Parts: sequence; structure tokens; C-alpha cells
Amino acid sequence: MLSSRIGILGGGQLGLMLLQAAIDWNLDIHVLDPDPEAPCRRIAPKFTQGSLQDFDTVYNFGKDLDVITIEIEKVNVEALEKLESEGKRVYPQPAVIRQIQDKRIQKVFYTDKGLPTADFILTENRASVGEHLDFLPAFHKLGRDGYDGRGVQRIASEADLDKAFDQPGLLEKAVPFEKELAVIVARNPSGEVMTFPTVEMVFHPELNLVEYLFAPAEISEETDQKAQLIARQTAEAFEIVGLLAVELFLTPEGEVLINEVAPRPHNSGHHTIQANVTSQYQQHWRAILDLPLGSTKAYGPSAMVNLLGEAGFEGPAEYEGMEKLLATPEVFPFLYWKAITKPFRKMGHITIMDDNISALKEKVAYVTKNIKVISKS
Amino acid sequence: MLSSRIGILGGGQLGLMLLQAAIDWNLDIHVLDPDPEAPCRRIAPKFTQGSLQDFDTVYNFGKDLDVITIEIEKVNVEALEKLESEGKRVYPQPAVIRQIQDKRIQKVFYTDKGLPTADFILTENRASVGEHLDFLPAFHKLGRDGYDGRGVQRIASEADLDKAFDQPGLLEKAVPFEKELAVIVARNPSGEVMTFPTVEMVFHPELNLVEYLFAPAEISEETDQKAQLIARQTAEAFEIVGLLAVELFLTPEGEVLINEVAPRPHNSGHHTIQANVTSQYQQHWRAILDLPLGSTKAYGPSAMVNLLGEAGFEGPAEYEGMEKLLATPEVFPFLYWKAITKPFRKMGHITIMDDNISALKEKVAYVTKNIKVISKS
Repeated sequence: MLSSRIGILGGGQLGLMLLQAAIDWNLDIHVLDPDPEAPCRRIAPKFTQGSLQDFDTVYNFGKDLDVITIEIEKVNVEALEKLESEGKRVYPQPAVIRQIQDKRIQKVFYTDKGLPTADFILTENRASVGEHLDFLPAFHKLGRDGYDGRGVQRIASEADLDKAFDQPGLLEKAVPFEKELAVIVARNPSGEVMTFPTVEMVFHPELNLVEYLFAPAEISEETDQKAQLIARQTAEAFEIVGLLAVELFLTPEGEVLINEVAPRPHNSGHHTIQANVTSQYQQHWRAILDLPLGSTKAYGPSAMVNLLGEAGFEGPAEYEGMEKLLATPEVFPFLYWKAITKPFRKMGHITIMDDNISALKEKVAYVTKNIKVISKS
Repeated sequence: MLSSRIGILGGGQLGLMLLQAAIDWNLDIHVLDPDPEAPCRRIAPKFTQGSLQDFDTVYNFGKDLDVITIEIEKVNVEALEKLESEGKRVYPQPAVIRQIQDKRIQKVFYTDKGLPTADFILTENRASVGEHLDFLPAFHKLGRDGYDGRGVQRIASEADLDKAFDQPGLLEKAVPFEKELAVIVARNPSGEVMTFPTVEMVFHPELNLVEYLFAPAEISEETDQKAQLIARQTAEAFEIVGLLAVELFLTPEGEVLINEVAPRPHNSGHHTIQANVTSQYQQHWRAILDLPLGSTKAYGPSAMVNLLGEAGFEGPAEYEGMEKLLATPEVFPFLYWKAITKPFRKMGHITIMDDNISALKEKVAYVTKNIKVISKS
């Protein structure tokens, strides 16, 4: 299995971290990405520039490979289905990507499978959102192509209706929640399933992006077991091969609800590179190459802070405060090979470890306050 | 400092692991190696094929870079000296490489600096070895170009004289030793020094190659402090910038003697990738980029087994037993991107962690017995 020719659709930061993990095993990785400046460009053993959404480009990229995987869901699924029908190992399976690509299908799937999720109503356009004023406050979510904070709007009342998307979507009940949690699950073709410890995500107040996370989440043992079980059941319901990141809401009543999932490595698992025996990236390779899954044991408490481009700066990226940061023990910055910073662009992340939880939190506060991605030109 | 253009002379496995660590910080790495199939070839952002020993090749490689380092000592030092004189940051410094390249100069240096090392006699050729029969048994070491077990011969008595090298070398008293230890030291241009925990190396009975190692070494606190101090003093005596791997003998009397040193990442530090907060590779980048050195704290006991090409096999490499091995928790194989295996060629290594020392040793025994690099063609 280690000698398979492997393709990744997408060459962003998740692809970069998959590549880095692949070095250990001499994996023959080919990357497809439309951006000639994609993070993977200079590191990938083989890089092809091309559209992820064009049938021919994706098909031609995959046809001489053995295993094809993704680091982004927005890909041409028809091409992947053809590759799969011709005997290629495509993981996650095209059918799973298809279900998850569309948040409407995703939500209906949870209901069908009896998996807990917030109440919702499917909507076809902006006008149809207006027919459900009694369901507000709610989030209006675009069915397809939402990503990194785009494609979600909070509709508190009729006055917000102009913010609703005029495309197929869904209205999801705004559940009050105490915490947002995530569990990354891996499943291999033999049906072996392994979960990473539950993490707790703190979102940026405006951006609908993870600002930082703590692992493990500070939750009761009972809640943790609930989150772990739901995540495992979700991966098993999809019968996914590969990673499934399951984002969850914890309500004040102690209910755990599925928010959404991603069928790939996820922002909520970057810290596993340092903090866990097996990283999510290595686990992904194990899963899709049908190898035994690795131990997900954590070496200790950790946190992860996303390094976003500072508002007001656009141009060649500079990392303010980095040298001083490197003098702090158990702080691990990872930069994403993006030459240009833009406001709120994900430019890197910083994993932090500390056996002392309050010291860990102090380091998080230091990092969020002092490390900035700016541009001087 | 993170934006420096950096060159590595040598693109073997040490270069590969340096590259892997450099991904975290988006370091712009250029690699020079004579072998078009060098391990770094497919991963390096920029790879130049060329001789490491040719003045013009090394000079031209370095002249457009900011920082030049090495992963092998056998390089053209004159070219590095010229680059240094033109203001390039060359670390380790050419003067240090020059001292270490020649084991004769190295040994004289220890004596001059009052650093403990086994007694020795400089020899000019085979005949001059014969003039010191009363010094036997001893090891005859080639002054220059010894590597990975080549360039050392045990001369027990007059009968072995034909094994002596007919080139400048040194005769080193065969000291009986209980253990062979190693300490990797890092020093940055600001003079900050940090040592990794002492490891204990077990050599292959015939090959004069590390077969496996344990970290930390099972030695008394007193011996450990002695080893750590000698390693630190050695790095400070050389005033090296970068890593210095110090190999040591522990004698039955509890004496710690310097065997030899390497001014670069070293086989005795591979396990630090998983087992320590900062790996030797990241520490090397920190040292030569004048960044604060990282914590060398170990997460727990570990071992490292070298994966050598099995005797009797030469051809496309296959890794026997790998899938089963991957089912064992906290076992981390690393393969060196070498397509062809040859008897005793270093093809990879396996790091093993376990808080339980006897379980750790059992895993080492399992790996050395069951994992084989063979070829079927």
C-alpha cells in the first residue's frame, strides 16, 4: 500500500500538512490545484495546475493514479465517480462527498439516520425563507459551496431577510449552545474506526472561523462520551473511508447536536501533529491506504490558535512577534506557504502545549494578542 | 530570519528530515547533491544536482543564498570559506568543518582544549602503524573521509597490520567501554547552548553502525551530568553554530571520553522528531537562523532502530512486516526515499516510544527481528 501512486485534489494548507506527513513513508503524492501559488506547489513531488471542478481535469489527473483523496469538498464528483467505477480507490468515496457537499442532503441524512442535529427547514430561495418567520431566529445556510465562514447568515427576524441567500439552502434553528465541540473520526476500508479526543472550539466573534481551540474539551465525562459516540456513529452512518471531522453543539441542557461535518483533515485537528501519538494527517493516510489506524492518545493538553491575516493589511506576508514567540517552550508555529496576506486569510496556526492548563491559556492569550500577520508594502 | 534563502549541502536522509522540519516555517530551502536520485530530490523546493566537493559548484550554489549549511562533512570547505568571506552566513562555520573533517586535527583539538578522549598516536601511513606495536590493541582511523563504518579498522596485533590504512590517520587506544553514549548539542550565534538528553547507542556487531539506541541512556545521574557537560564544553570549544553530535565512550571506571563528533544532525537524534518537544532538525534551523533554541524535553522514553538493507538483497526496496508493525502503538517508521536497497544501506529508521521500559525493549526486539528491507527483483 505504501507504494501506491496517490493524488490529492487540492493543494492548500491541509494538502501541505498531508504532504509533510507523507514524507515519513515515502508516499508518492501528486497534487492538483488551480492556483499556481498553492501552498503545496513547491513541496509536492508532483504538482499539476488545474481546476478541481472540471470533469476532464480531475479525471485526467486521477486516471494514472491508484488512490485519490481530497483536502477540499468542492471538487468534480462525477469525475471521481468515473474513476471509482474504473477501479481506482477514491477515498472519501464520491457518494459521501456528494452527500456532504450539499448541506441540505447532509441534514436530511442525519434525520434519516436518527443522528441528533438542530431542527431545520429546507428553503429554495430568499422568498421561501420569508415563509418561516415563526422559525426565527435561525441560521440560513447555503446548500452548496459555503466555506470558511462564507455561506452562513444569522436571520434574527423579518428585518434580516435581505441577508438570506437567494439559492437553495436551509434554515437551521439557532440553538443556544454552551460550547462548540469537534471530534475527528477515522475509518478505514476494513471498517476499523478510531476517534481523536474531543476538542472545544472558540469562534471568532465576527468571522464564523475557529479562533482557537483547546484539547481536550473541558466538558463532563458524560458529555465527552456522548460526543465521541455521535461522531463515531456519524462516520459509520456515512461508511466513510478517511477522516470525518464532526462539529458539534453542546446545549445548556447537555444535549450534543451535530452542526456539520467535513470529510477530510480539519482545522480542529492541526494540534494533533504535536499533541497526539498519531496526527490527523497520518491517520488519514493510514485510513485511505487500508493500514491499521494509529493511537490517538494525547501527550498532554494543547491548544491551537489560527493565524489570520490582520485586518487592514494586504501584500507580502510578515509575521510579527514570531522570534519572541519561539522563545516560549512548547509553542509550535506552522506557516502555510502563502506569500500574500489578506484580511482574515488563514496564514498559519500555532499549536501550544502545556501540562498546566492555566499556563496553556496564558500562552493562548499571549499568542492571540501579540502574533500578527501583516504586510509592510 | 524566516525569510532567508537557505542552502543545504547534501540531500540525503538528514537533508530530507531537515526539509520536513522546514515546512513548518515556510523556509526557502535549496539543496545541492550529486545524486539525481538523492532522497531530497522530489521534496526540495529547489534541487541542484552537483558535486559537493567541487569549488565552483559549491560556490555557485551558495552565492545567491543567505544561509548555507551542511548535512554531510565531506564538502568543499574552500568554497564555503569564500562564501563566508563575502558575508554569507555559513553554519557550521567552515573552520569548524575543517577541524572535524580530519580526525587527526579533531583529536589534537580535544587534547589542546583539555577535553577527555582516548589516547592516540598520529600515523602517516601503514608502515608507521607498525612502529607502535606496544600501543596495540588499537583502532586505526583514517584521517579524512571515513563515514558510516568505513575508515576504521581494529588492529589487535602485528598480524592485523595489513588492515591498517596506508594514508594519514591515527591509532587510537582501544578503550574497553561499557556503553557508547551520544549527546546532541545546539549552539546559536548568540552563544545560547542547549543539549538533548543523553542517549545510549548499541552498535551492530560487525558494521560499526548504530543498530539501535535508547533515550534516555540508562546511566547514573553522575555519568549523565558528566556526558552533558563534556558535550556542552566541546560545542563551546569549537564555538560551533548549529548542531554538534558528540559520541562518547563510558568506561568501566565511569570515565566519559569523546569518541568523535559530527557538526550536523545525527543518526543518534532521529527519535527527537517524535520523542522531544523540539526535534534536532528544528533545533538546527533555530540555531543557524539565530532564533531562540527550543526545549529539548522528552515526552517519554524512546528508542530508535536503524532500518538497514538486508544482506543478500539488491534492487527496488520493499519493506517486509511494515503493515503489521503499524498496528503497534507509538511506533513511527520513517523511510528515506531510496528506491534501491543494498546490503546494510541505511534505508530508514523506526522510532519507538513507550512509558514502560520493558515494553519499549520488547518493541525494539520485535522490530529488529521482523522488519526487513528486501528486494524481490
